[in-house]
Amino acid sequence: MAELRDPQSRRDPTARSRVRRLPERGAYDRATIDAILDEAMICHVGFVEDGQPYVIPTIHARDGDQLYLHGSSASRTLRELAGGIPMCVTVTILDGLVLARSAFHHSMNYRSVVVLGTAVEVEDRSEQVRAMEMISEHVAPGRWAEARQPDDREIRQTKILRIALDEASAKMRSGGPKDDEEDLALPVWAGVLPFRLVPQEPTTDDGVPAEITVPHYVIHHRLGAS
Amino acid sequence: MAELRDPQSRRDPTARSRVRRLPERGAYDRATIDAILDEAMICHVGFVEDGQPYVIPTIHARDGDQLYLHGSSASRTLRELAGGIPMCVTVTILDGLVLARSAFHHSMNYRSVVVLGTAVEVEDRSEQVRAMEMISEHVAPGRWAEARQPDDREIRQTKILRIALDEASAKMRSGGPKDDEEDLALPVWAGVLPFRLVPQEPTTDDGVPAEITVPHYVIHHRLGAS
Repeated sequence: MAELRDPQSRRDPTARSRVRRLPERGAYDRATIDAILDEAMICHVGFVEDGQPYVIPTIHARDGDQLYLHGSSASRTLRELAGGIPMCVTVTILDGLVLARSAFHHSMNYRSVVVLGTAVEVEDRSEQVRAMEMISEHVAPGRWAEARQPDDREIRQTKILRIALDEASAKMRSGGPKDDEEDLALPVWAGVLPFRLVPQEPTTDDGVPAEITVPHYVIHHRLGAS
Repeated sequence: MAELRDPQSRRDPTARSRVRRLPERGAYDRATIDAILDEAMICHVGFVEDGQPYVIPTIHARDGDQLYLHGSSASRTLRELAGGIPMCVTVTILDGLVLARSAFHHSMNYRSVVVLGTAVEVEDRSEQVRAMEMISEHVAPGRWAEARQPDDREIRQTKILRIALDEASAKMRSGGPKDDEEDLALPVWAGVLPFRLVPQEPTTDDGVPAEITVPHYVIHHRLGAS
C-alpha cells in the first residue's frame, strides 16, 4: 500500500473486482474478506455526485453476505445511496511499516477489502433494529445489551443501508522487506515495525454514579486482544 | 462518524467542501487541516471510472499547500488520475469510542479531512525525488537519509501526483457522550474508550548483520509519542 495501486480490472465489469496490480496480493475467498471486514473498526464509503467522487468514513457491520451501514434519515447522501447509486466500501487495516534497504522497496503491511455494489434501504423494523445492534456490537461488543435501546422516534431518525458482498476483493501484504539482491549487503537496518490500534485507559463521563464501574467489555475491548 | 454523514454542500460547487451534516463539527482553517493530514499514516483515494467509484488506500505527504501521492508508472489508475479526473483524498484518525447511555447516542471520536481536486503529474526530477523523500519521511521520519536512494530506473518507474489543498475541509468529534437529559439517571456506565495506533516491537530482517542495531527513529517512531 505504500504506493497508490490499481484496484481492480475495471475494463471488464464482470471482473472489475479483480486485483490488477500485484495480483499475488489479491484474495477472493469469503473467509479472508469476512475476517478483514469484521476486524476493521471503520470503513470508507465512496460515491459520486455530479461526477465528483466523495469518500466518507463511517462504521459498518457484516451479517453473513451483507454489509450494513447507517446514518441519519435527514442525510441527503444516505437518501442517494438508498436510491441505488454505485458505491464502494473500503476497509483498511494498517499492520506495519516495511523498511527495506532501498527507499524504493519500502512498503506497508496491510489488509484491505474493496466492496463494489449498490445499497438498498432496510425497511423492515426488526431488521433495522438488528442492523443497529450488529453495528453497535461490531465496534463495542457487549454494549448493546446494556445501553438504552432505540425507541420508535430514534429508529425513524435512522436510515439503514444494506450492501450485498457479491463483488468484493481483499488485498494485503505481510512479511519482511523484498530488497534487490545487490542491496542485501548494504549496511542498512531492515525490518518491519508493526502497528496496532490499541485501546487506551477509558474515561468515565461526568455524572456516572461511583458504584457503576467500567464494564468488563470496555476494559477487555476486542482491540485489546492481541 | 458512528453514522454515515453528508460530506459537503454539494449542490453549490463553490461551497461543496462545506460540512453539511452537524456543521459544528466542521473546520476549514489550514492549521487544523494540515495537522490531521500530517498525523494520519494513510489516506483513502476516491476516483470514478465508468460511473463506478473506487476507494483505494495509499500513503501521502503534505508539502505546504500541496499533497503528494505516488504509485507505479505502470498503474492505469495513476495515469488516469494524472490526466486530471476529479478525485477525493480522505484521511481519518480514529480517536475513540463514545459510549452513551442510549444506543442512539453512541458515537466515535475522530478527526478527518476531505480534499477534493484534481492531480497533476510531477515531471521535474528534483521535485519527484523531493516528493519521494517527503512521503518516506511522512511514514518513517529519519529513514530517508539511511536507505539507499532511488536510482534513475526507480524514479522512472514511479509516478508522483500533486494535488492542491484548495478545497479541503476537516470534520471531527471529541469529548464525552451527549445523552438526552432523561437518560442521564440511567444506571448505565458512559464514557470514552480512546484508541491509538501504537508501534509494536520491530522485527529485524534476515541477513541484517548483528552489529547493525534497530535505529533510533524506528524505536522512537512518531506514532509512539503520546
